[in-house]
Amino acid sequence: MTGAPKVRVKRLPEKQVDDPTVLAEILRAGVLAHLAAVVDGQPYVLPVAYAPWSDGIVLHGSNASRLFRHLASGAPTCATITLLDGLVYARSAFESSMEYRSAMLFGSAVQLTGDRKAAALRALSDHLLPDRWEHIRPPSEKEDKATMVLHLQPDSWSVKVGSGFADEAPADLELLGHVWAGRVPLSTTAGPAIPDPTSAAHGTPVPAHVADIANGPN
Amino acid sequence: MTGAPKVRVKRLPEKQVDDPTVLAEILRAGVLAHLAAVVDGQPYVLPVAYAPWSDGIVLHGSNASRLFRHLASGAPTCATITLLDGLVYARSAFESSMEYRSAMLFGSAVQLTGDRKAAALRALSDHLLPDRWEHIRPPSEKEDKATMVLHLQPDSWSVKVGSGFADEAPADLELLGHVWAGRVPLSTTAGPAIPDPTSAAHGTPVPAHVADIANGPN
Repeated sequence: MTGAPKVRVKRLPEKQVDDPTVLAEILRAGVLAHLAAVVDGQPYVLPVAYAPWSDGIVLHGSNASRLFRHLASGAPTCATITLLDGLVYARSAFESSMEYRSAMLFGSAVQLTGDRKAAALRALSDHLLPDRWEHIRPPSEKEDKATMVLHLQPDSWSVKVGSGFADEAPADLELLGHVWAGRVPLSTTAGPAIPDPTSAAHGTPVPAHVADIANGPN
Repeated sequence: MTGAPKVRVKRLPEKQVDDPTVLAEILRAGVLAHLAAVVDGQPYVLPVAYAPWSDGIVLHGSNASRLFRHLASGAPTCATITLLDGLVYARSAFESSMEYRSAMLFGSAVQLTGDRKAAALRALSDHLLPDRWEHIRPPSEKEDKATMVLHLQPDSWSVKVGSGFADEAPADLELLGHVWAGRVPLSTTAGPAIPDPTSAAHGTPVPAHVADIANGPN
């Protein structure tokens, strides 16, 4: 990432992380970004699949999408990727919270064309459905024309990480130490793989690149 | 929900859902909203825990948060809740996608005070950490003062649902029917519960309201 982490979150500053390797880890682990587009003063927050790419992320959408076209025009945006890692049970509601990692990327998106667009689409496929690309047919010209690919190389970014147990006041620990507190990790489970009617009719076995996802932690 | 679903998504109109019971289902199932705040033309997308409440959602944050204060002033916002339900493997990248449910709520937030604030905080606890409230101490005055609670009762909303297998062209099915296609469901797994040092030292057993979360699908 070239963008400097110049945005500071004032609240809970201890959760602010300036380490770009943590940002890269979050971008590798996530699949969904929430992307802002502001049209005529009304903000929209779009859930969009993304892939990490070239000092930022790439996103794909329909060429007919009004909001994607708006973003392609260079409007300032923010893309937020959030991973929910756990629930934190404290002895007060105030100290109860969640374990999470979130990254906000600030900047303007650029529409990709030609070889860069093709490379970004490949990166999206590889990130979202690993090793799938070699098993499927290449995109048609019509599909390529219908697809818009945006590259957001952030001017600045902000990463926040909340992890571990609640930080409770000594008084609460003394008075309420008998109340169970702790954390419950959350993770994503994938599978089992369900064949579509054609694969079911042919008895096509689940290939390794799908079984790897469907049988393991995602 | 009283807000009419007047925002139409032009792309993939078959995925637009007008049924308010689907919206209510999404709001019950999610815990995290991505909330837009636009300050001096720069959009921010904040990940915030929410609870369904009174024809909308409630969100809590710090009274010191610049973005929460901005939203409390009545700035137009959008809160998006997205549930990722699965990966869809087609025989082309173009038709490959994800199963998801997403809700966008549009409107302006209102800051809650007094009894409504207390009720909303209770709803947040009950939604995020079911049955926890009775086991923990009540909020202190200082904690209450430090917390801002916003209520977003949307003027309009938009729900999109993508589910099922890819809708592939007959030509792809004929030529590529031997390529496995299908879907891989995604779900959230919680647990095991990890006691904090105080609970570990006391040997406090994991209570039922935590075990119910940590042992079951979330």
